[in-house]
Formats: sequence, structure tokens, C-alpha cells
Amino acid sequence: MNIGIVGATGMVGQTFLNLLENQNFPVTSLKLFASKKKEGNSILFRSKKWTLTYLKEGCFDNLDIVFFSAGDDISLEWAPKAAKAQAIVIDNSAAFRMRKDIPLVVPEINANSIKKEHKIIANPNCSTIQLVVALNSLHNKFTLKSLHVSTYQSVSGAGNTALNLLKTQSQNILNNKQSLNLASDEKSIAFNCIPQIGTFNEEGFSTEEVKLMNETKKILNLPDLKITATAVRVPTFNGHGESVIMTFQKSASLSQFIDTLKTQPGLQVLTGEHLPHNRFIDGKNDVYVTRIRSVAETHQKSWMMWVATDNIRKGAALNSLQIAETLIKQNH
Amino acid sequence: MNIGIVGATGMVGQTFLNLLENQNFPVTSLKLFASKKKEGNSILFRSKKWTLTYLKEGCFDNLDIVFFSAGDDISLEWAPKAAKAQAIVIDNSAAFRMRKDIPLVVPEINANSIKKEHKIIANPNCSTIQLVVALNSLHNKFTLKSLHVSTYQSVSGAGNTALNLLKTQSQNILNNKQSLNLASDEKSIAFNCIPQIGTFNEEGFSTEEVKLMNETKKILNLPDLKITATAVRVPTFNGHGESVIMTFQKSASLSQFIDTLKTQPGLQVLTGEHLPHNRFIDGKNDVYVTRIRSVAETHQKSWMMWVATDNIRKGAALNSLQIAETLIKQNH
Repeated sequence: MNIGIVGATGMVGQTFLNLLENQNFPVTSLKLFASKKKEGNSILFRSKKWTLTYLKEGCFDNLDIVFFSAGDDISLEWAPKAAKAQAIVIDNSAAFRMRKDIPLVVPEINANSIKKEHKIIANPNCSTIQLVVALNSLHNKFTLKSLHVSTYQSVSGAGNTALNLLKTQSQNILNNKQSLNLASDEKSIAFNCIPQIGTFNEEGFSTEEVKLMNETKKILNLPDLKITATAVRVPTFNGHGESVIMTFQKSASLSQFIDTLKTQPGLQVLTGEHLPHNRFIDGKNDVYVTRIRSVAETHQKSWMMWVATDNIRKGAALNSLQIAETLIKQNH
Repeated sequence: MNIGIVGATGMVGQTFLNLLENQNFPVTSLKLFASKKKEGNSILFRSKKWTLTYLKEGCFDNLDIVFFSAGDDISLEWAPKAAKAQAIVIDNSAAFRMRKDIPLVVPEINANSIKKEHKIIANPNCSTIQLVVALNSLHNKFTLKSLHVSTYQSVSGAGNTALNLLKTQSQNILNNKQSLNLASDEKSIAFNCIPQIGTFNEEGFSTEEVKLMNETKKILNLPDLKITATAVRVPTFNGHGESVIMTFQKSASLSQFIDTLKTQPGLQVLTGEHLPHNRFIDGKNDVYVTRIRSVAETHQKSWMMWVATDNIRKGAALNSLQIAETLIKQNH
């Protein structure tokens, strides 16, 4: 396979390369795209140096799969060109996710939504992926009626800049303890929870919340699902947590609930005091579920759980790689 | 008034003293209790030095009001002794909160639950207080049916030790960036969200969640309220956030909803991009509500909001002081 990676020096691009390096994935050649100012720099992959290049007309010729993770605008402009050049695009931006003619794929759930005619395949938002992996087997067994999600999202989802910002701001606050409560920028993320990710729409929902709600409906094929979300940025480096409360049509016992979760590929159930903290999930591939409780007075139909994953891995790079593997399996 | 403060050097005790200092509250004498090893140290209050003492038999004689904030065990043992010595106890521990013969008071809501015969008055848990202040006027107008809360709780609620731990752990991680993901203690709070506050009961709820659920029912006088909670410790110094989703019997328009919130004393409604981050609410007395959204398809009966406050002030010290002011007003 001749693979192209747009956004090769970004956090998701780098993780995609790391995963690809160690996966039994057939790579004949790599074409690594970054901004023009990085042209000529190189990246080591499977003991060989690959030079960075930048996007220009004809740049996708002879590529089989192009992975995009460089923001909505880049994808909107260049993904159709890659598709026209006969490459299959796996797009990690939000540009095409809600388009009816483009599948939005979490391979463990809806690999079968990829059809021969699809040239662009959308990778869902990080906070969506971990949620639907946690919900899928439950929905298949007990039929999901409604859910509400409150997120605890790390800064890595906002890229390397945000990661460095959290480090620098935290250091500044710690070095000047007197001004702990007087940081000049009220919205700085260090030691701060910010209940806003993106901008607000007319109904008051943020971009991130709208993504989470709409994408979940599309992936689970539940257009009428009652889903609401509150998305919050928290001062952690990597790993998203989600507090989920959900109601099903059918009731379940605790053991049925846990057994059903355990049938879901890519999901791990943790019980007892062993909780999936940020540092625990960092660098791991699975989605973790814990804090499973049924809501009293609902006849075991309403449940709560905590869902956590490495948002850069399963939330982005790993899921895209799994889409690529699915394409090979399906002989796309 | 002759005032006793048990736990005078703790974070809540110190904030109680600071608030008292600046409030128009009649203080004739102060008796400040701390651990025995601090005996003889003194604290400046209204330009006068007050010497620290420790708890011993007879120590509450001639006190009018004794404020306790030194943990459940101290309150269980000593609060009844203070009451026996004819002092009124305002207790910030969980020891007496759910006792039927003891009122659990947020003055803006249920000051009238304090009766002449009450010698011990319980101050609710921090995460409860901000929630009920945000819910009270809404419940009075639209009748609360059910709610779910996910909390984002700072470390200050766990005291000075936890505050210093967050500082030290954060510094250690920042100083050795290589080991960012390899902190020896997985449960350390720095750059970590921990979905556990307290210990878990048989149903899987944590101590903090049980407090929040039971105390809310008691204060709002809604024993059959359907309430569930997920309590999470986040790496912030001070200020608790809560993501709340709730359903009422009656429907409301957005303006009715906001107008009703605005009738609640001690509550501020923030709209638009002005969000109550941790550093914004730190040191403020009010409870802040923002991110108000109605849930589609519920005919304006289900709503979401974000509730934030300084958990050491309104969540503890300020509320206790307001209870004391209520006692004076009521000529208790």
C-alpha cells in the first residue's frame, strides 16, 4: 500500500505513524504531508527516512490510502482531490462526518457501512468514538432510548499547542504561588475546568456537544435517539473521561449488563477500586468502562457508567488505522 | 456573641474567620480550637490576637455558637458536648446531616427548618449546597421530578494537604517531562481526573455521591426525588463545577427558566461566553449558573445547566456563617 498522511507532524499524525510502524500493515511507500515550512525535514519509519512534503496539485497520484488529520479546511479542499486521484481517504476532520453519502466509521460497530463506492470515509470525533464503543453491545441487547453525557476532555484533543500551553501555564502558576488566583487569562486551562469546547449554537450547545450528539446517532443508526451532552475541557494532558447516564427499553441485571459490555470488541470493563485514570489509559488502545450503577426506581432500565480512553489513540489515530485495515480486509 | 471554632486552622475554619472578620457580626469573644500541637499559637482577628487551644472537658462553657469543621469523628464526639454546654452547634461535618431530629440548612432555602429545640444545626456538603441553591427557585416554580449530576470537584474540598499535594505532584511531573505518563502513583491527582470521591457502597455509589443525593432530598423536602450523581475529583485548586440535567413536571420557556433562576437569592446567572471558571469563582460568594439549555423533544420540561461555586465559601464557611446570622435573626 502506498500511504499518504496529511498532518504527519501533528499529534494524531505522529501517533498514526507510531501505530502503523508496529502494526502488521503492508506499507510499500509513505508520503508525509506537513506545512510548507517543514518541507525537506524527514521522519524515520521502519528504519527508513521519509522526507516531508506539502500539499500541491497532483500530490496524491499513485497513493492507495490517504489519511487526513489537519483540520476541517484542509480536508474540505484536499480530500476530494485525493479521492479524484483514486486514493481512498480516511478523514479525521469534521468536514464530511455528517454527509449522508459518506460513512462515519468505528470498525467494531459499523464496518459494514463502507460500500465500494465510498472514496472518503470519515473518522468520528474522539469523544464520540469512546462513547459508541461503550454503548454498542448494550444497545444491541437492551435497545437504547436516551442518554446524557458529561465529558472530561484533556487538552491533547486540541493538539500540541494546547499541550504545551497547559505545561507552560501550569508552570507559571506554580512558580508564582501568590498569583494562583489571579492569572491574567481567566480562560487559561491550567488548574481550570472550562465548560466550553468550540462555539455555541443558537440552542446553547457547543460545537463539540453537537458533534457528539449527531455522530452518535449516525454511527448507532438511531436518528431518533434522545441524546444530550455537556462537553468540558479539563486540565489533563491526555485521555478523555465521560460520565454517562442512559435508559434502555429492556431491563438488565448487573451481571447481564457487565456480561454484555464484555462482548464488545475494543472494550474493557474495570470493577472495584481499579479506575481508568488519565495516566492509566494514556498509551492504551482499548476503551475502559467502570463505575457501573443502575438508577433506583427504573426497574434496571436506567444505568450510569464512566467511560475513558486515550483520545489520540482509539479516539483518532488507532480508529483510522483500523478503518484502513478494514478496507484491506474488505478488498475495497 | 461568644464564638467557638473547632478546626480553626483548617481551610474552612480560616475562611470562616476571614468572612467573620469582614461581616457585621457581633463577636464578643473567640475561642479557637486546633490540634494540641498548635496550642499557644495565635490568630489575629479584628486587630486582636486570639490564642489557639484544644478540645477538653468543659471547653465549651459560656460559648453561644460553636462552629465545627474538623471531620466526622471530632463532631460526633464533641458537638453533643457543646450542645450540652448550652452552645448552638453549626456542624460542617457529615456526622449529623441525615439525622431526622437535626436540620440540614441552606438559609436561602430552608431557614425555617430551624426550630427552638435544635441545638445542633448541620451544614450540608459543598457539592450539595451549590446544587440546591441552583435548583430551589426552579423547583418552587416548575416542580422537580428527577435530576442527574456529574461533578467536577477541586482538591480544596479535601483540605490543605490535598491542595499542597496537587502543587507538589504537578511540579514534579512538570520538572521531569519524560515521566509525564509514568507517575509512580496512578491515583495522584495532578493532571488526572479521578471518578471516585470517598469509598463505594454496595450499589457502587461513592460516599460523596450518596451525600449529594440524600442531602438534596432532605433540603428540598423531596424524599421521593429521583436523583443520581457521579462525583469526580479534578486537578483544580478551588471551585466545584456541576453538570446538571433535570426534569420538571411543568414546562418553561427559556426566558421563564432564566427569570426564575434570577429570583433565587445567592445565585447569579451568566449568559453568553462569560463562563464561571475556577479562577473566576474563587473567592466569590455566589453560586453561578450558566450553559442553560433545554432538552429537545421534552416540551421544555428537561433542562441542562452548569453550576459552579467556591466550595470553601458558599460550599462550607459562608453557608455556616449565614446559618449563624439566621440564628441571630430568629433570636434562637
